Amino acid sequence: MIIYTEKELKETIHLNQQIIKVIEGGFTSLVTKKVQMPPIMRIDVPEFQGEVDIKSAYIPGYDQFAIKLSSGFFLNPERGLPSGNGMMILLSTETGIPDAIFLDNGYLTDVRTAAAGAISAKYFAKEEVKTAGVIGVGSQARFQMKALKQVRSIRKLLVYGRNENKANLFKQEMEKSLGVEVKVCSTAEEVVKNSEVVVTTTPAEKPIIQKEWLHPGLHITAMGSDAEYKQEIDSKVFSSVDRIFCDVRSQCVRLGELHHAVDQGVITDQTEVTELGQVISGKYQGRQSNEEITICDLTGTGVQDTAIALAAYQELQSKAVGKEIKN
Amino acid sequence: MIIYTEKELKETIHLNQQIIKVIEGGFTSLVTKKVQMPPIMRIDVPEFQGEVDIKSAYIPGYDQFAIKLSSGFFLNPERGLPSGNGMMILLSTETGIPDAIFLDNGYLTDVRTAAAGAISAKYFAKEEVKTAGVIGVGSQARFQMKALKQVRSIRKLLVYGRNENKANLFKQEMEKSLGVEVKVCSTAEEVVKNSEVVVTTTPAEKPIIQKEWLHPGLHITAMGSDAEYKQEIDSKVFSSVDRIFCDVRSQCVRLGELHHAVDQGVITDQTEVTELGQVISGKYQGRQSNEEITICDLTGTGVQDTAIALAAYQELQSKAVGKEIKN
Repeated sequence: MIIYTEKELKETIHLNQQIIKVIEGGFTSLVTKKVQMPPIMRIDVPEFQGEVDIKSAYIPGYDQFAIKLSSGFFLNPERGLPSGNGMMILLSTETGIPDAIFLDNGYLTDVRTAAAGAISAKYFAKEEVKTAGVIGVGSQARFQMKALKQVRSIRKLLVYGRNENKANLFKQEMEKSLGVEVKVCSTAEEVVKNSEVVVTTTPAEKPIIQKEWLHPGLHITAMGSDAEYKQEIDSKVFSSVDRIFCDVRSQCVRLGELHHAVDQGVITDQTEVTELGQVISGKYQGRQSNEEITICDLTGTGVQDTAIALAAYQELQSKAVGKEIKN
Repeated sequence: MIIYTEKELKETIHLNQQIIKVIEGGFTSLVTKKVQMPPIMRIDVPEFQGEVDIKSAYIPGYDQFAIKLSSGFFLNPERGLPSGNGMMILLSTETGIPDAIFLDNGYLTDVRTAAAGAISAKYFAKEEVKTAGVIGVGSQARFQMKALKQVRSIRKLLVYGRNENKANLFKQEMEKSLGVEVKVCSTAEEVVKNSEVVVTTTPAEKPIIQKEWLHPGLHITAMGSDAEYKQEIDSKVFSSVDRIFCDVRSQCVRLGELHHAVDQGVITDQTEVTELGQVISGKYQGRQSNEEITICDLTGTGVQDTAIALAAYQELQSKAVGKEIKN
């Protein structure tokens, strides 16, 4: 068994077209193969505002599958530690024996999450996007904008975050790394009303985006909510959009934005909600006109973890890195 | 983070009174503390007759908690590999950061499973047990008999296994290691009718033990069934015993022997089923007379994993072993 560090993974896996294709392949397999993806396992550590999620998916036809631990401990920053952490374990499909452990501290999760955002924009945003918006100014907000740049030639970026200093820092960094103009907005409303694509990346527990802010041609990727108590999108938004997309419906109605829309009766079993894999595989169409208003709810899936872990393992095999542990 | 190997763990953790106490502490915490123990996560790999279970439990008040992967890939023996495998990851309760990985290949699971068997016998078997029986001749059958020897002064051991060669090998090994007479029986019935304690350790999918075989004073520990499709005990046995015990009721009615008894209507929500933690903590009594017929259904719990992992980590800390990985 080989152990790979965060540094080795960061030098090997990058948020690029190739990785977006890899994650597309993961979503497609949900539609075309008998994927085993059990519900997320979750352990809460309330004393330290901590949570650990465990995800996995077995995709038939591959040599391995991944089991991923990801944690958020929200008192860590007070100790000078990042709140997020994690690792992946890659098991042999044939024997169940662990082939590799990725001590990535959440890096692969960041990349595969951003890649899902890129896929959402690729299929659901207008072809021509001049102005994109992002709500939230954390690490994943940065990843999402880098991902968006891979699939759309954005010229201007609008950003809103509750902390103005962090928003300004985001502006500085993103103008440099993406080479686009970034404007810090004073409200989320300003971002949404003036953007053609908006990505929400916050851990909000009360809805931010209101239906009155929607406008023809808008696409929203809601990626922040991945737990029952999180919500970024007002449920009424779902009755005002033309098309609803998501990563995995059964998970989104439990943990994502759809969860609240179902609770409010805005979404029922009869509501048409199309999964990413159904569009990528060509079974359903994505955006059908420049006027449609669309939304995509992302909660993060084990199939993304297995897809990126398989790609990382393949790349790493050809390098002389990693530490072998003989047991 | 430190990685420990199977060899290091086998040199450190032994199936003894101390470990039985540790596992008792785990069960007790289920009753006395707000333990977080999510349902088992399971991934099936039908192409290779494989299954991976993930268990975890967070016990408030301890520095760490464990997440355990355990796998059974039943074509492995054809390749000369053990079917069972596994590892544990010990996370800091305060930060979620992994402190240690135990590459134990299932050793700690074997020990904590056997310890639960010892606890079952300690509280539910008669004080004086001359003859014990075991159904099954695999690795866990051996562990269970070693565990039983820790809590009862058995003089004779009856064993039944479908494979006579393996049963004879079991006899040879156990006579040597336990110093008791072992008799290979030609039927499970012979074992049950002539033993005061019986432990079932098979992956049977059809019931073995029948109610007609029960007799006053008998205690049965049913540890084999830990999945919906497994069953060692005929459901009618549950209507013929005086007391029913189990590790965790909610899990046993889903995955254990209780599952089938519930399906058959033999056990209802009103049936008195007492959990190990309730007895160990003194809230309920174990065996109350020499005539009672008792049964205990064990499915294996995350709290046992966290308890043994914490004990192992503490022991290992004082030794100059393990491989540190800097990340």
